[in-house]
Amino acid sequence: ALYRGLDSWDEVVGRIRGLHTDTLRKLTSKCEDRFMAGQKDHLRFETESWSDFRLTTGKPCCEAGDAVYYTASYAKDPLVNYAIKICRSKVKETQQQFFHSLAVRQSLAVHFNIQQDCGHFLADVPGSMLPWEEEADEEEEEEEQEEGDKKDGGDGLKESQAKSEAKSTESKRPNGESGEASAGADASAAAAGRLRSRVVVITREVPFQTVADFVRQGVSRHVQNPELYERQVCLLLLQLCSGLEHMKPYHVTHCDLRLENLLLVHCRPSNARTADPVEPNNNSAGKLAAAANSTCPARLIISNFSQAKQKSALMTSDPGALRDHSRLAPEIITATQFRKCDEFQTGILIYEMLHRPNPFEETPELKEQEYTWADLPPLPVRSLYSQGLQQLARLLLTVNPSERIRMSEARACLQCLLWGPREDLFQALGCGSASGSMSSATSGQRQATLQNWLDLKRTLMMIKFAERSMDSACGVSLEDWLCCQYLAFATTESLSRVVHILRQP
Amino acid sequence: ALYRGLDSWDEVVGRIRGLHTDTLRKLTSKCEDRFMAGQKDHLRFETESWSDFRLTTGKPCCEAGDAVYYTASYAKDPLVNYAIKICRSKVKETQQQFFHSLAVRQSLAVHFNIQQDCGHFLADVPGSMLPWEEEADEEEEEEEQEEGDKKDGGDGLKESQAKSEAKSTESKRPNGESGEASAGADASAAAAGRLRSRVVVITREVPFQTVADFVRQGVSRHVQNPELYERQVCLLLLQLCSGLEHMKPYHVTHCDLRLENLLLVHCRPSNARTADPVEPNNNSAGKLAAAANSTCPARLIISNFSQAKQKSALMTSDPGALRDHSRLAPEIITATQFRKCDEFQTGILIYEMLHRPNPFEETPELKEQEYTWADLPPLPVRSLYSQGLQQLARLLLTVNPSERIRMSEARACLQCLLWGPREDLFQALGCGSASGSMSSATSGQRQATLQNWLDLKRTLMMIKFAERSMDSACGVSLEDWLCCQYLAFATTESLSRVVHILRQP
Repeated sequence: ALYRGLDSWDEVVGRIRGLHTDTLRKLTSKCEDRFMAGQKDHLRFETESWSDFRLTTGKPCCEAGDAVYYTASYAKDPLVNYAIKICRSKVKETQQQFFHSLAVRQSLAVHFNIQQDCGHFLADVPGSMLPWEEEADEEEEEEEQEEGDKKDGGDGLKESQAKSEAKSTESKRPNGESGEASAGADASAAAAGRLRSRVVVITREVPFQTVADFVRQGVSRHVQNPELYERQVCLLLLQLCSGLEHMKPYHVTHCDLRLENLLLVHCRPSNARTADPVEPNNNSAGKLAAAANSTCPARLIISNFSQAKQKSALMTSDPGALRDHSRLAPEIITATQFRKCDEFQTGILIYEMLHRPNPFEETPELKEQEYTWADLPPLPVRSLYSQGLQQLARLLLTVNPSERIRMSEARACLQCLLWGPREDLFQALGCGSASGSMSSATSGQRQATLQNWLDLKRTLMMIKFAERSMDSACGVSLEDWLCCQYLAFATTESLSRVVHILRQP
Repeated sequence: ALYRGLDSWDEVVGRIRGLHTDTLRKLTSKCEDRFMAGQKDHLRFETESWSDFRLTTGKPCCEAGDAVYYTASYAKDPLVNYAIKICRSKVKETQQQFFHSLAVRQSLAVHFNIQQDCGHFLADVPGSMLPWEEEADEEEEEEEQEEGDKKDGGDGLKESQAKSEAKSTESKRPNGESGEASAGADASAAAAGRLRSRVVVITREVPFQTVADFVRQGVSRHVQNPELYERQVCLLLLQLCSGLEHMKPYHVTHCDLRLENLLLVHCRPSNARTADPVEPNNNSAGKLAAAANSTCPARLIISNFSQAKQKSALMTSDPGALRDHSRLAPEIITATQFRKCDEFQTGILIYEMLHRPNPFEETPELKEQEYTWADLPPLPVRSLYSQGLQQLARLLLTVNPSERIRMSEARACLQCLLWGPREDLFQALGCGSASGSMSSATSGQRQATLQNWLDLKRTLMMIKFAERSMDSACGVSLEDWLCCQYLAFATTESLSRVVHILRQP
């Protein structure tokens, strides 16, 4: 059977093509296993585990929109770092909302770009770990703390539990040095009096900054090395779109996509062979620089689902609700309304990540009118990627939601911008881009060229993996994985569709 | 430039083919670096280091034709195991001969299948490490020992040095437990009195048995699983031929190829990622079983160059010698005489490794006549490999040295037997094997089929390496390397030449 068809070149080519495709798919899934090794373990920490966590530094590792993150280690598994996420919200109602958002998020299957918690609970946190509250009214806090101590039993956590947590949290202060970080002097006694009840989430992924920080720090890099910076932006946007695309079958819409809700995590595949599984977040300066300079800056994680909407399965199964909705214009029904909301917000993020203001913040009246692409501010052309990103932003900000590009298409556009085929391939072949003059090359020729391009790219990808097997680090990078994913599932049809989308006038 | 020719399928195929070939060559050389990592370090131990070696067990790890090997560790690098080779020869002249053979071997560049020493010297060795001498005449030994003590200064090692060695060797006895292994009681004093001066060689490769042991232990495996056993034989012969082929440009002939001069070493590529660099030769039982059952039993090392001949460069540069030789029949000149000697001995080894006696030992009168292939005893057909090995043995035992197959051709035949293309490929294509009826397929068709076969095999090899990059062990096996070497350098021409040789009637 192995030798059948060996006399036919066409058959051999078909088999080699099939082998390459199958292998790249297998490699993609192996990469996923490796990059998500920890995440798929389904750890669950309960309130009892709170006392087993120790901060590794007193300073937050990341300050996000909805929470502050601290690096911590878990006594029973000291080599792995965790992040302790302390939610900013103090008010009861916001906490309720938080638990709702957690429920929404937990309905999603695990995804590389969506924050996953390994347990969340209400815990008493020393004031020194809540530095942003220092400016707030001290009295109000004391009052709130008292309230927490006395009437906090309603959130599903027993008060005695919360109390015991207070003690154990206290005991970890010497290790974590958070006492030193606290602003008020004589830490142990004073801070103990200021324990505050907060929602705490344990996550495996330790963020080192938000995309907001990345963009802020990238201003000068964007000027000095626009090619690198805009490629990094594409890689981050690709991860964002992948995460959001993953939410679609669950009918979940994030609805609050902002730079400060997107976290960056240093990414190294879990590698059985590397001796040091500790991710030392301490020397974060060096890491930050490394992340800024590598092509793929980091793993992006979508966080803060407090505004997320989910079209409940009930809606269709409940005949009453179905009857009510059946007479409403589609744009009135919440689920329909929000269907393309994340796409729109992603379009805004493109502007912001390229250091341009949100067009609708700059010109609020835009939204009042049926604006066209021409009304959207142009993005300056600074790199190979600028024009493609401009086009993508327009497609995502299209006023009519049914004409607006879908998340899966946006993801495909970013893959095409990152790894090709590029415009110049088509120009080189005489099927130029200008005003859709497709006459010079037949569709069949185009398909053949795309297939050739794909065959060559897949060969190169295979070679990359083969050579990685001989690296002493045996390291497959995040970008390798993302690219492998693309090439494993691309077809000449999907490629020509994307090229067509990106070329729309 | 990347996109040029993407519209031409032929050009793309050519580029993919070129990429595969280049990558396999690169991978072959990276494999070599990895498998020979230790060997290329060019360690040199002098007599002074002798006291820094400690035996890890009192029992020899391997008893070869010319020497006995002990596993030892070096105090300054305790994680790496070394072998201490203690030469069997006691007589002065044999030692002289040994130093000659060392000189011959050292003229060769490093090769994976040729024993390399990291230092050799005359040292005083306790009698307990020379168990084979127990049966020998005690008196003779005492005498010899005395001689060693008194008149031993001539071998380039000062006597005082040898004396000091005696002490330091003595001091390692408690660690090495060699005292316990010694037959005579009250070890320290008695054994000290029996120190014997022997040539000692330090090598990095610790043999666990000789091919003679492998063949002896393989009798029942050959019956139970002939496919596996004969494949292992092919892999060992391939390594033997590679080593011998490497010697050709240096005009070195081994001239004493016997099963007990070929050593087997457990083979694991030096891997920066594996945590335990110690090769624990202690649990040799488990290792032996593993080696016997894996397809590639072990790394083969050619040892004992005491009979080796080297055509000296002087011969041609010295006009007198040249004039003398110019009138002699070519078979009289030693260098010419021995030119195909190793080929012949390799042919005998094929018989012996397949549990058949040396045909010329069985029928000594064979050599007296101009025997033909028909006079050589047939090898029983037990596996896919038997017929090919029979053919190879005949080609190597051809009476006329100029018609005898060359070592490089023998190596190519073994590669073809191991990894194809197999006879059935040609039969399937209608260019059958019987009596050279090549008429049914044109030469062009055959070339095309071979090219297709090569393309497919290279793709499969690339995939293997790519998938290895995702293995947690990231382990490339010795067989992978050997096969990669084959595919990286094979051409349709070389393939069809070998197929032709193996098919000779």
